[in-house]
Amino acid sequence: MTDTTQKHQATLDQAVQALHGRTFFAHYPENPSPDVYGADADAQGRAAYDARRNQPFAELQQGAPEAWAGQEDSPYEQQPLGITYPFYAPETLVRNAQEAFGPWRKLKPADRAAILIEALEGMKTRFFEIAHATMHTTGQAYMMSFQASGPHAADRALEAVAAGYEEQTRFPETTQWDKPMGKYTISLNKSWRAVPKGVALVIGCATFPTWNTVPGMFASLVTGNPVIIKPHPKAVLPIAIVVAEVQKVLVAHGLPATICQLGVDANDRLITKELAENPSVKLIDYTGGTEFGNYIESLQSQGKVVFTEKTGVNSVILDSCDDLDKVVQNLAFSVSLYSGQMCTAPQNFFIPEQGVKVAGTLVPYEEVVQKLAGAVQGLATNPKAAPHVLGAIQNPATQQRVADMAGRGHRNALAHGTVDNPQYQNARTCSPSLYELDATQKEHFSQELFGPIMLAIKTKDTHESIRLAAELAREHGAISCAAYTTDEQIKEEIKDEMSLAGTAVSFNLTGGIYVNQNAAFSDFHVTGGNPAGNASFTNPEFVLKRFTWVGFREPVAG
Amino acid sequence: MTDTTQKHQATLDQAVQALHGRTFFAHYPENPSPDVYGADADAQGRAAYDARRNQPFAELQQGAPEAWAGQEDSPYEQQPLGITYPFYAPETLVRNAQEAFGPWRKLKPADRAAILIEALEGMKTRFFEIAHATMHTTGQAYMMSFQASGPHAADRALEAVAAGYEEQTRFPETTQWDKPMGKYTISLNKSWRAVPKGVALVIGCATFPTWNTVPGMFASLVTGNPVIIKPHPKAVLPIAIVVAEVQKVLVAHGLPATICQLGVDANDRLITKELAENPSVKLIDYTGGTEFGNYIESLQSQGKVVFTEKTGVNSVILDSCDDLDKVVQNLAFSVSLYSGQMCTAPQNFFIPEQGVKVAGTLVPYEEVVQKLAGAVQGLATNPKAAPHVLGAIQNPATQQRVADMAGRGHRNALAHGTVDNPQYQNARTCSPSLYELDATQKEHFSQELFGPIMLAIKTKDTHESIRLAAELAREHGAISCAAYTTDEQIKEEIKDEMSLAGTAVSFNLTGGIYVNQNAAFSDFHVTGGNPAGNASFTNPEFVLKRFTWVGFREPVAG
Repeated sequence: MTDTTQKHQATLDQAVQALHGRTFFAHYPENPSPDVYGADADAQGRAAYDARRNQPFAELQQGAPEAWAGQEDSPYEQQPLGITYPFYAPETLVRNAQEAFGPWRKLKPADRAAILIEALEGMKTRFFEIAHATMHTTGQAYMMSFQASGPHAADRALEAVAAGYEEQTRFPETTQWDKPMGKYTISLNKSWRAVPKGVALVIGCATFPTWNTVPGMFASLVTGNPVIIKPHPKAVLPIAIVVAEVQKVLVAHGLPATICQLGVDANDRLITKELAENPSVKLIDYTGGTEFGNYIESLQSQGKVVFTEKTGVNSVILDSCDDLDKVVQNLAFSVSLYSGQMCTAPQNFFIPEQGVKVAGTLVPYEEVVQKLAGAVQGLATNPKAAPHVLGAIQNPATQQRVADMAGRGHRNALAHGTVDNPQYQNARTCSPSLYELDATQKEHFSQELFGPIMLAIKTKDTHESIRLAAELAREHGAISCAAYTTDEQIKEEIKDEMSLAGTAVSFNLTGGIYVNQNAAFSDFHVTGGNPAGNASFTNPEFVLKRFTWVGFREPVAG
Repeated sequence: MTDTTQKHQATLDQAVQALHGRTFFAHYPENPSPDVYGADADAQGRAAYDARRNQPFAELQQGAPEAWAGQEDSPYEQQPLGITYPFYAPETLVRNAQEAFGPWRKLKPADRAAILIEALEGMKTRFFEIAHATMHTTGQAYMMSFQASGPHAADRALEAVAAGYEEQTRFPETTQWDKPMGKYTISLNKSWRAVPKGVALVIGCATFPTWNTVPGMFASLVTGNPVIIKPHPKAVLPIAIVVAEVQKVLVAHGLPATICQLGVDANDRLITKELAENPSVKLIDYTGGTEFGNYIESLQSQGKVVFTEKTGVNSVILDSCDDLDKVVQNLAFSVSLYSGQMCTAPQNFFIPEQGVKVAGTLVPYEEVVQKLAGAVQGLATNPKAAPHVLGAIQNPATQQRVADMAGRGHRNALAHGTVDNPQYQNARTCSPSLYELDATQKEHFSQELFGPIMLAIKTKDTHESIRLAAELAREHGAISCAAYTTDEQIKEEIKDEMSLAGTAVSFNLTGGIYVNQNAAFSDFHVTGGNPAGNASFTNPEFVLKRFTWVGFREPVAG
């Protein structure tokens, strides 16, 4: 154990430091170039993925399966992956986890952290395999599949490990307490333990199967809780590989593999609710839709600690800028990236009726809308860029949602279309559409329209834009906000209103940085300040609530 | 503002350091001696208290009252204090708080912390007045009234201020983030704000009107939330004085007094539920009974952040010791202190049927029970000590509970009696009673019997004692546990089991230190790890959940 702990202590210390500096830090390079990862890395990753097709996934070490199940389809090929995973009944998973609790919680936080970093190093060797697995489950394009599911996810996991380690070591393990009583002194030996809560459940989503799963997974693990990973049935493979890597390291250290289990649905038995309601399950991380998320949150009344990332309505506030073309290019990329299937994708574009001030001159509302539509259209029809930015649609329901919008009678500034993908002719695609609404039509823009749907909302002025964006965030949740203004007073008004609505704001982004992107070790992802969710990657609360401080004291032997 | 901030920065830094050292630290001396507080301090405090009797409490600066109300009685005199307090409708209190939110949240954490420490310095000048007010509302004896409501409460408040200040300043306010992109660098200016949640409510209890109120009150205030203090109608005066001191300092700094308001019940209108359910109330701290506490916790489903300290069933595990007489003396004091009306008072005494090993020899179960009864009886009938330890009974229902126990048919090893109080012949008193039960009678010992009721429970062996103590803590809550063992293996078993049940354990206490006592800056009070409550004075979670981190970013001007 000590060897592994020593091996990774520097990484751990560096990560803790990065958490507090919040300047740029990445432990895992995001560039999938051969220079970084080796000449054959991509080909080998692709081959490893191909070899898994139509096979049982046999890497897990968590005991004899009760059945085999698999329901994944490739959004690029629109046909089944044919991979099956071992199925275990919820009671088996929970019993296994309870049995594994003792040895795991009795390790020191530094030892647990090191084992988990060792597992992330294992994950790193499989980033390319995970990338192809992510493409063919989520529909993300190759670059995003690599970055989001590989290095970015691993950095978010490392961030959670670092935060959890720091919180558990922030108070002394032991101390001597000497209280002067005048003529004598009362002396007590005191000690404290960070006591993990118990069995943890992490419920994954279909669009970001590792990125949204590993923070809660590694946060629960580093704080000593055994974890059951319940992936979305349509996106199992990427996280199954990560679980296999964790199990490999656990077993190599003489620990039960069942400290970290994969628990998949059977084709005829969905196990999430059974797991979530099991009285021994004390911690739940959830990413997904609001309705099920609200159910998960309701379990808090049973004493469970719950972290959610649900949906939100993200706003763009357009007030003033120096170069409108650069602004719409940036926004067009943000809405097109993975066809709007990101929790951080902008949806509502608030534009004042008198227009947007560009380098001192008002550009009329209509022209702003046209420019935005033009930029989106330009990107979606650019054969070199489009497939690599827009990717494919994960869920047919998203395509249906886009189609339904067309029938609602809103003025349509840009119709949705398909995206040419020369490599995958059967890819399920859909380019963004843009509708125009009025500020009074709140019922039409106050819900998340997950997918490539943009709404231009004409407001009286920027104050109304801010008021609406903040109100939507407070009442319906928001995970991102983009604002464009050259006016310092307006900027402060946006900061003040959006901060009260618990929403991070990106100002005046142009060029190669987008509102959708959140950097580990710098940007808190989801603040917990509005209905979009109460999990934040990674603020101290995200790890603290996973354990309890318990103290012991005894008189010093006289 | 800067003057006040500078004035208290050293105290603040020292307090933050103490939080992490967890060695002995007290900013407010607990000894009410003339040497410390001045020759006339007690007489002046008593006179100030006397002068308030039968008068309206006119010190608050929170606007014209809508009515006047007061319902306090002295447990020592069994007659009304006759003090009335300004009444405001819940909607008035909430509106005032919302209006005061802006100026308060816009201060820097260091400035808020300094203002609050200045208010604690004001509270310090009134410790003796608060002591007499506490005696005549709670029934605590003089020494406890002074220490618990004065210096100990002020230290807990300072602890919350320090923890809140530290958490809000733990991440940089601004930083520059430079991401190398190969041929160029993306540079963003980033900034973060700790955004307070909103209007906070603190619901006090009748037995510890300041000690249990100030942690939540000062924690919410230091993190920028305006606070409404809703005291128990039977114990208003001690905390009203504290609120008046806070308001005085706020006004002196040009801030609205309504940042911290007192909200009392009218004689015919209880306002707690109305306040708690008001949608603008975002934070609630509650101390009191379990039933109402569970209702308060249920409000979490409305997105409110809730901190509770409810009731628990505290255990004593008797296994082995060196000197049984010293052990029973210590325990007798613990159960007698304020007649068992403490959330940390022991109730269930688990004793193995084969007895307790004392210096290597087994003392039979019966003899242990007799010794315990004898020690309690000796203290209760000691005219010099008894009134100063046992104090008076706050609530007639507690006396009734003791009387009812006598009719339940349990074997009675010690009957309750009265406590002679030469100074207050009308004092409502009750000395502890001791009943014997068997380990199988769980339904009789698995609820809190608030007040001076002790249960001796005969178990098969210490393992059963531990199992039962841990089970009760897990299922019904516990705030303290005392254990006596000279066996290292048993000690580790107790630590492991009780830590999983989220219960702090005091081992082998004898002499002048008691299981009931929890020291600020060292002992976490209530861990949050069992149903007794989710508030912990003061772990980071206790302050973190009162605000949200929100980030802003913008490209560095090129």
